[in-house]
Amino acid sequence: MDPEKSRSPRPSITSIPRLDSSSESSSSLLAFDDRPDHLNLVPVLPFTPKNKSSHHCFSNKNCLYIIFGSVVVGFFVFIVGLFKNGNFSEPSGPINVILMISDGFGPASETLARQFYQVTNDLPVSWKSPLDDILVGSSRTQSSDSLVTDSAAGATAFSCAIKSYNGAIGVDPSQKACGTVLEAAKLKGMLTGLIATSRITHATPGSFAAHVTSRDMEDLIAQYLVGNFSLGPTVDLLFGGGKCFFLPKEDPYSCRKDSLDLISDAQKRGFSSIKSLHELNSLNPDHKLPLLGLFSGSHMDYEIDRDPSTQPSLANMADKALKILKESSKKSNTGFFLMIEGSRIDMAAHSNDPATHVREIISYWDTVKLVRRFVDQNPNTVMISVSDHETGGLSVARQLGTAYPDYLWRPEILKNVKKSIEVISKKLLYFFNDSPGSTSQHKVDFVKNVVFGKWLEIHDYNDQELYSLTNATQSTDLRQSLSDIVSKRALLGWATHGHSAVDVNLYSHGYKSDQLRGNVENTDVGAFIRDILKLDLDKVTKMISNDPVKQKTPFSSSEWLG
Amino acid sequence: MDPEKSRSPRPSITSIPRLDSSSESSSSLLAFDDRPDHLNLVPVLPFTPKNKSSHHCFSNKNCLYIIFGSVVVGFFVFIVGLFKNGNFSEPSGPINVILMISDGFGPASETLARQFYQVTNDLPVSWKSPLDDILVGSSRTQSSDSLVTDSAAGATAFSCAIKSYNGAIGVDPSQKACGTVLEAAKLKGMLTGLIATSRITHATPGSFAAHVTSRDMEDLIAQYLVGNFSLGPTVDLLFGGGKCFFLPKEDPYSCRKDSLDLISDAQKRGFSSIKSLHELNSLNPDHKLPLLGLFSGSHMDYEIDRDPSTQPSLANMADKALKILKESSKKSNTGFFLMIEGSRIDMAAHSNDPATHVREIISYWDTVKLVRRFVDQNPNTVMISVSDHETGGLSVARQLGTAYPDYLWRPEILKNVKKSIEVISKKLLYFFNDSPGSTSQHKVDFVKNVVFGKWLEIHDYNDQELYSLTNATQSTDLRQSLSDIVSKRALLGWATHGHSAVDVNLYSHGYKSDQLRGNVENTDVGAFIRDILKLDLDKVTKMISNDPVKQKTPFSSSEWLG
Repeated sequence: MDPEKSRSPRPSITSIPRLDSSSESSSSLLAFDDRPDHLNLVPVLPFTPKNKSSHHCFSNKNCLYIIFGSVVVGFFVFIVGLFKNGNFSEPSGPINVILMISDGFGPASETLARQFYQVTNDLPVSWKSPLDDILVGSSRTQSSDSLVTDSAAGATAFSCAIKSYNGAIGVDPSQKACGTVLEAAKLKGMLTGLIATSRITHATPGSFAAHVTSRDMEDLIAQYLVGNFSLGPTVDLLFGGGKCFFLPKEDPYSCRKDSLDLISDAQKRGFSSIKSLHELNSLNPDHKLPLLGLFSGSHMDYEIDRDPSTQPSLANMADKALKILKESSKKSNTGFFLMIEGSRIDMAAHSNDPATHVREIISYWDTVKLVRRFVDQNPNTVMISVSDHETGGLSVARQLGTAYPDYLWRPEILKNVKKSIEVISKKLLYFFNDSPGSTSQHKVDFVKNVVFGKWLEIHDYNDQELYSLTNATQSTDLRQSLSDIVSKRALLGWATHGHSAVDVNLYSHGYKSDQLRGNVENTDVGAFIRDILKLDLDKVTKMISNDPVKQKTPFSSSEWLG
Repeated sequence: MDPEKSRSPRPSITSIPRLDSSSESSSSLLAFDDRPDHLNLVPVLPFTPKNKSSHHCFSNKNCLYIIFGSVVVGFFVFIVGLFKNGNFSEPSGPINVILMISDGFGPASETLARQFYQVTNDLPVSWKSPLDDILVGSSRTQSSDSLVTDSAAGATAFSCAIKSYNGAIGVDPSQKACGTVLEAAKLKGMLTGLIATSRITHATPGSFAAHVTSRDMEDLIAQYLVGNFSLGPTVDLLFGGGKCFFLPKEDPYSCRKDSLDLISDAQKRGFSSIKSLHELNSLNPDHKLPLLGLFSGSHMDYEIDRDPSTQPSLANMADKALKILKESSKKSNTGFFLMIEGSRIDMAAHSNDPATHVREIISYWDTVKLVRRFVDQNPNTVMISVSDHETGGLSVARQLGTAYPDYLWRPEILKNVKKSIEVISKKLLYFFNDSPGSTSQHKVDFVKNVVFGKWLEIHDYNDQELYSLTNATQSTDLRQSLSDIVSKRALLGWATHGHSAVDVNLYSHGYKSDQLRGNVENTDVGAFIRDILKLDLDKVTKMISNDPVKQKTPFSSSEWLG
């Protein structure tokens, strides 16, 4: 899709159709040459009043008045018509773009969450989620080297508007840095922001402001985020997890391989830094940018596990960010580009954990709701919501055994679950391995009373299921058992712990959102942002060509994170 | 969704804005009162030429000329603008609606087929299927009694524009017959048609012209199709499989429980009847309706198995039907309603047979292509393509074992497959059970040389796989083994042999297709057809209230069919 091609025609007020190029009297008033193509569709017919001789119109004053009046009123009516049809909405002020990314959220995830919410809240079948009535199409996700993308190539398609290989963070298939819409927006004088519930150094946020050949190079991504390279700081507002990558290796909470203290670095470059919900809540809308908010060491907690008195939700972060960006952009008379990621929708699907997946989606919906409100109140703003790929191969149906299945699934099973599989398996392993003096019977009692009794609210477990939880020693085995215990009862299927190829839903709302519809490539989303903001990505690509794209020892995650 | 509400404003050519209601001279020319609301947005300003005194404009002839000219040109430009923006397309002739239903085709099916076609034909990543660039949204599928619908409730949502229970064929949740868009169109004088690759008495086609409390009552559905009840014949053109339900039980090819000869019945009511590809090909566009074409005893062959010299494809049937309906509707100056179902996309997914599923989809695409061409050549026509539900819980990804999966799947595996799992398993069982003198070694040789060697082109089979094919005695076991052998190699996942809840893709093209977009209920598709054709379904409902909705002994299928 080339958004330029589908852009609505804009009449040029200064160019007025010329009726007769040989007529001197009309040549200055009715200049024809530069008018846009679409105006050529509108023939301006010579008007001959009744009872008048048909001599040359331009020698007749009445005739000239009629033509002039006709053209003026014609234009006026045409322009009003365009406004009314929503095809003409050139803004009076700077434009804002809010790109929301629901990582690992496929079409089945939306149906799952909607039916879960509808049934467990006793809502009518026709109830729509905050996303449902801004659906405009779907996005194709494959990367340059695979039919099934990862989040790095997926985000690079959005940020650089190019297809790259799986693992690529802001680099092209030849591993050269590519300029991103965020960087180009910054260079143009706009404000920029990144919000994620993962580590802010993770693949999706990383791809908008960093350039590394592999997503595992989170040390280097963090350096990019605080502006260590040729462009300097490009992100005015960073909210998320991942503080460990900003601390020197000497700090007990660090996960860096070197001694860089990036929070101090950032502060030297003018960033203020916060790390708690309390500090976030205390920020005024006129808080000075740049601003670095890191609310957890690694990923932020899943919504199902989060303590709302100590850690902000995605909506909390987005709400504060929009207030600050709005105030700051008003002062500097500029627009902003903000990326908001519901990062852990994906991670819950990697764990095949439907109860956690569905809560992450509902938390994302809350954020969509407030972003939609912002768009409605700020007419120069467009929001897009899209996923990089589907995760888990989720099916909202599951056949158990060989008998032909009934047509149903059971949302109430998910409602009863109180903790993520990640947390339950960690607590189980802690109880088994580090709990002094615990016996086999203690383990069994803990699984029966706490895991099944309280956290899953499942009382019809069988011996085999009990055994799988009391005897597992590996985290992966425990997680698989927990996933099966819940998903089989809820009648939900998973095909993989990785990603799948299915097209993902595309949503948009606000300024010029009608230009993004139908089935598009993920790169078209990046191209839409580039074109709507009139950004020059090639210029950025040239400027960053000598920045480092590799670090010696990439961070290696012990768990797969998407 | 209320299509009426989203309908574009239509300027009334006869009502012209009045500038001054007190001015007698303008009152007849510029009547203001009845003009539509949107025109009130267009202020017509009085124009004052330079060097003229500002006395009342209507006492000045020049001024009147200017106003009159302005209004005329203004209207002209406005109307051209509306045409250009596609919001004004009131037809000059009767309207045609073509509803295409891709049974059991979920979002993953489209990605699967596109990537299969793209990779195996060496096409660019950006290649689009005939559906891709007419995607307008998605349809929610749940029925009145389940989060996961079946084809009967799914089709009844399209035909009666109401949610009903799983199994319901043209009846409401209280099992009362509901008038369908096809019947209402017929009563309005339009032509009607049903095309399917399943038995024409199957749930989807059945729901448009029959009213039975259970989809299994195919005897009674067949009676409806030939017009045995109060409305008489409502379908002018029927193409598909299922001849067995039209033959009396005395006929060796019958599957009826009674002695009704419905082909004779139909002929008595004016139907002509055909049963072969040759007869189909011989039909002229001016062939007289009604017309009954039954091309196989039960379902028509899967595309992968079909002999194109003996059985028509879906596109063959649709092409001929469109030619005949066009000619016939031209003669009678009426429009037509035609439903075209790619019925067996669903059945291949029920068998978890990805190679057959993908061929059925490509055959459906061929039909979409020709229907799109018809729409482009006949501007009063709208086509919709939608699914009733997803089948199989298909994932375009599959993890084998516990190791974290690579991100890929393998289209070439599906390309190599030469026959459907249905046919392979039938042939295997025949060879094992009915082949005189065949030994164990013969069986093994047949499986190795024919099944693996020729039909699947799989040469890396293992002993367990060989055993599963040579020793199975049940059709279901054989099918499951064959599905696993292919799907595991292609890295495709299936969650069920039944249906899943995921929203399905919605496509539309042509006349007023812009009124059907975003995320809609399946009933909205029926409502769109009802409203665009201005049909009175309630009137039909009253007329059919005494028709039978039950038969004593329903047909009971030995295999699940959707």
